[in-house]
Amino acid sequence: MEYKEPFGVKLDFESGIIENAKKLVRKLSDMKGYYVDEEAYEKLLKEDPIIYEVYAVEQEEKDGDLNFATTVLYPGKVGSEFFMTKGHYHSKADRAEVYFALKGKGGMLLQTPEGEARWIPMEPGTIVYVPPYWAHRTINTGDEPFIFLALYPADAGHDYGTIKEKGFSKIVVEENGEVVVKDNPKWTE
Amino acid sequence: MEYKEPFGVKLDFESGIIENAKKLVRKLSDMKGYYVDEEAYEKLLKEDPIIYEVYAVEQEEKDGDLNFATTVLYPGKVGSEFFMTKGHYHSKADRAEVYFALKGKGGMLLQTPEGEARWIPMEPGTIVYVPPYWAHRTINTGDEPFIFLALYPADAGHDYGTIKEKGFSKIVVEENGEVVVKDNPKWTE
Ligand SMILES: [Mn+2]
Ligand SMILES: [Mn+2]
Repeated sequence: MEYKEPFGVKLDFESGIIENAKKLVRKLSDMKGYYVDEEAYEKLLKEDPIIYEVYAVEQEEKDGDLNFATTVLYPGKVGSEFFMTKGHYHSKADRAEVYFALKGKGGMLLQTPEGEARWIPMEPGTIVYVPPYWAHRTINTGDEPFIFLALYPADAGHDYGTIKEKGFSKIVVEENGEVVVKDNPKWTE
Repeated sequence: MEYKEPFGVKLDFESGIIENAKKLVRKLSDMKGYYVDEEAYEKLLKEDPIIYEVYAVEQEEKDGDLNFATTVLYPGKVGSEFFMTKGHYHSKADRAEVYFALKGKGGMLLQTPEGEARWIPMEPGTIVYVPPYWAHRTINTGDEPFIFLALYPADAGHDYGTIKEKGFSKIVVEENGEVVVKDNPKWTE
């Protein structure tokens, strides 16, 4: 029998970079329609800032195998809405995921297929358990990069379409200097 | 449909403790037959030191779900052999695992079912990918607690029996102040 080779790679705690990982960059222009304030979006688009970077080490899509990735989510806002990842369900909806916050300040917004939402604050050391079926999006509510490690089944897959179309039922904004989780005015059941 | 509730828990980077986790303690007396030097084992048994502690957050044994646990592996030696975990294959042998070193110094010994071994040094920031089918044991080669986080499929299970009976084909010892990986004199094909 042929076995895959074990390996060790270095994660840099300061930068979040995993050596030899596949890098993915999401700029504001990759996220049209994701933020509520379209005017603020168009205005910030002139700068087109990087919203987040992902460093992923992935295996073939096989049951029982595992992928891992760090995300460096930059600080900022589109209008009053904090910079965030696109968010997704898993294509294999019953696949769980575990996040581990390493640096900065933020949180995770989760949602069932019926739109029932949860907000879990994250700081360095917080481990978040994402149960099967929940969509998940991370949000930087601080003023430095928010860095975390995620581990997910190799066959989980990403369903971005549902969130792109419908969004989350909640949004996370700054109001009077406070982090506020409130109803998404664009949400429809 | 009923959904499991997402949650966040705190991992303390200094102590390795995960709040509300299930704690498991392995003392030297739980590891009879694991170390090569039986005389040194019997002598140290009078103190019966704690070799390692595990803080685990586990789900039902379901395909696609994930468990996580930290291990605090104490420094020390039995004869010249460094303190180590029992080591195991997964009961569902094709389940992978990912380790993330947080503190201290050590490494992972891995082995195929045929006894082909690998040694992967670990320091804070090292992520080790344990492919399907490989047995794995961690070893503290430093002089402070070696602390790491592990993530594994909820249905992986632990097969301790094979290692208890046969051991690994390699052992990790201190020789003239150096960490040396050498053939296990008690290993039989
Ligand atoms: Mn995911
Ligand atoms: Mn394991």
